[in-house]
Amino acid sequence: MRLSRYFLPVLKETPAEAQIVSHRYMLRAGMIKQASAGIYSWLPLGFKVLRKLENIVHEEQVRAGHIPMLMPTLQSADLWRESGRYDGYGEEMLRMQDRHGRDMLFSPTAEEMFTDVFRSHVKSYKDLPLTLYQIQWKFRDEIRPRFGVMRGREFLMKDGYNFDLTKEDALHAYNRHLVSYLRTYERMGLQAIPMRADSGPIGGDYTHEFLVLAETGESEVFYDAEITDLKFGNREIDFDSVEQCQAVLEEFTSRYARTDETHDEAVFNALPEERRRVARGIEVGQIFYFGTQYSEALGATVQTPDGSSVPVHMGSHGIGVSRLLGAIIEASHDDKGIIWPEGVTPFHCGIVNLKQGDDEADAACEALYKSLTALGLEPLYDDRNERAGGKFATMDLIGLPWRITVGPRGLKNGVVELTCRRTGESEELPPEQAVEKVAAIYAGL
Amino acid sequence: MRLSRYFLPVLKETPAEAQIVSHRYMLRAGMIKQASAGIYSWLPLGFKVLRKLENIVHEEQVRAGHIPMLMPTLQSADLWRESGRYDGYGEEMLRMQDRHGRDMLFSPTAEEMFTDVFRSHVKSYKDLPLTLYQIQWKFRDEIRPRFGVMRGREFLMKDGYNFDLTKEDALHAYNRHLVSYLRTYERMGLQAIPMRADSGPIGGDYTHEFLVLAETGESEVFYDAEITDLKFGNREIDFDSVEQCQAVLEEFTSRYARTDETHDEAVFNALPEERRRVARGIEVGQIFYFGTQYSEALGATVQTPDGSSVPVHMGSHGIGVSRLLGAIIEASHDDKGIIWPEGVTPFHCGIVNLKQGDDEADAACEALYKSLTALGLEPLYDDRNERAGGKFATMDLIGLPWRITVGPRGLKNGVVELTCRRTGESEELPPEQAVEKVAAIYAGL
Repeated sequence: MRLSRYFLPVLKETPAEAQIVSHRYMLRAGMIKQASAGIYSWLPLGFKVLRKLENIVHEEQVRAGHIPMLMPTLQSADLWRESGRYDGYGEEMLRMQDRHGRDMLFSPTAEEMFTDVFRSHVKSYKDLPLTLYQIQWKFRDEIRPRFGVMRGREFLMKDGYNFDLTKEDALHAYNRHLVSYLRTYERMGLQAIPMRADSGPIGGDYTHEFLVLAETGESEVFYDAEITDLKFGNREIDFDSVEQCQAVLEEFTSRYARTDETHDEAVFNALPEERRRVARGIEVGQIFYFGTQYSEALGATVQTPDGSSVPVHMGSHGIGVSRLLGAIIEASHDDKGIIWPEGVTPFHCGIVNLKQGDDEADAACEALYKSLTALGLEPLYDDRNERAGGKFATMDLIGLPWRITVGPRGLKNGVVELTCRRTGESEELPPEQAVEKVAAIYAGL
Repeated sequence: MRLSRYFLPVLKETPAEAQIVSHRYMLRAGMIKQASAGIYSWLPLGFKVLRKLENIVHEEQVRAGHIPMLMPTLQSADLWRESGRYDGYGEEMLRMQDRHGRDMLFSPTAEEMFTDVFRSHVKSYKDLPLTLYQIQWKFRDEIRPRFGVMRGREFLMKDGYNFDLTKEDALHAYNRHLVSYLRTYERMGLQAIPMRADSGPIGGDYTHEFLVLAETGESEVFYDAEITDLKFGNREIDFDSVEQCQAVLEEFTSRYARTDETHDEAVFNALPEERRRVARGIEVGQIFYFGTQYSEALGATVQTPDGSSVPVHMGSHGIGVSRLLGAIIEASHDDKGIIWPEGVTPFHCGIVNLKQGDDEADAACEALYKSLTALGLEPLYDDRNERAGGKFATMDLIGLPWRITVGPRGLKNGVVELTCRRTGESEELPPEQAVEKVAAIYAGL
């Protein structure tokens, strides 16, 4: 993309309403614009990252054997009356009536809808196991929306639902989700730690939240320092293998890691003092096995091999996709702006032309642009007639991990400058070597 | 995908509520399920096609230089009051109040939102031309939703908006959209004819609707038979070239083609009788230049080179993405089911195992599955323990364009059967040749 043809409305001033760094940078980098309280328009740069996150979530869900589909945003109130949640949901549920006076609502979650699809079409244990999911916009009418996309009212969520014959099968689905979530967050450059969560009124031990450590996190978290050494990495895993998924769960959840809601001071204090950590975290996902609560309420039963009829065991599993943009920025930035991890960066490499209009510099930039594009990479070429300082500030603010700077002086020596956004380190090298190096970095992802 | 692990709830009976063939087949093929009147859940097979259509639209919009972003589904009523459309929009607009009593609405279209983004960030003619677009769910509270996704209440629409300094520039944007729409529909296997449309209360000549000919179309259409010979094909086009885009517009709109709303009997009757056609059509898109109506109402002005301030010239351009599924099926089916054009098929090739459990047949199917997958194709392998008749009926219903049938008898002779869904023709050939042939068909798209 050539910046002269893009729509990147960066702001010089910090908007007064933004209290946390991700919100400030998303506004300043021209990624979002508030439409009304807690509701955002996704400007081109923000939409590009959102789409990348969405694609990573899809890829990892499909890899785990989960099946994508899509529910409407608006639902009839009837289903929620049937499950008993309509009256109790409270003011966070946005309710409305259509022109015929029928009660509708904007989906805040979709247990009822998925269970309804399941009960309409699945009758036999032979069709299990089954995990269906969607990535769809949700609405929760937060009383005080804040922190930009971190606590918005309209937000993009991946929500998945497993349907299994037995509790044992459903716990395998639970473990499978844990594994796929670990992979998902790592691809996004995030370390998200599974922490034992509060299962609320439904009860049970089987729920974990995934938290990203960040000073601005809403939750206080307590954990064993050893947990931050764990990496899922590139290990191969068979998602059908009960043993393999169970082993990953044990590896990643056996050490102490809890939010303030489930924190147990005595257990925590039994850890050696040098391993005890107290910090803050941002919740970016949750997995939850809840048994037969919805299947019983909504009559989602299957025939067993012996001909009897039983309610299926279910769980629901969510990732806050739009919120992840905020979380990634909270975890990865400096005082100049965002620092995108390579896996989610909106453009792979910036090209800064120090002397727009200089024939040699223009030609070198065009050649770089073509070479990078030919390798399947997406460069962002700042081809505007601006001062170098302004171009650097924009590139630093929007946070592309790599930048190639092209100027007449370097070109005389046959070199351009390749700069790493994270370290700030630069090296001079011939243009074709800069391209090779950038391509090698992305090929290694 | 192995069918035993997919969620494809096909129906044997034709649902009584479905009046037209696309609605019947989408329900029977397990693509959609009605959630409430005019609101559908997209089951996995339907979602897969929807996603393919969305990707084609994105690719063609980006090719034309248009920039993707995303608006929220819910909007504040204030903007619509400012443009003067809030009170007049009528009952098709779904209105609601949030918990603080603020008036909100579910976006039926987004002229106001895009104009607001534009006026907040663009101040100079130097930032023009600019075309922004989104693919987002809309809601129109139709009094009588019907025909499945063809006339639903919640629907997926691509809506784009151009902002230009002059009428001349805006007409180039109009032409660019016409060209990109022709490419888009052709990639989907559709012939969509641009027909002069009624510009409504705003007036002006600059609006065309794109119509797909189908018996079940809602509009009566009148056209010169020569128009159906026009193909955009693989021609190269420079979207920046005013002349090239204008030439395409002239080529595709100079012959008579109108809906009943703009039909002129006298002009039509001046055509040689053998070229006059009266038929029915489904509207799948519309382009519209409307000048400065919204930019004046909302104060979207830019500075000109001489320092004065002028309202920008705008147009809006839409494609009914979810409706396209219905239109494609209306245009491409037979009495056994859907016939997907190769460009949008949910799976590239079906594999039918005539004798599941037979070692040789199972192994041959697995080998085909791996070969097709390795070539970047997505096969759907019916690995269920079902009779051959049932497997064929399912494949015909869901409409994959190519099917490979594998059975012990053929394998003894070293062959499998490759069948074209559209013609019904089959040929026997060695498995590796069947794979090559399928791969060559898709490589040619």
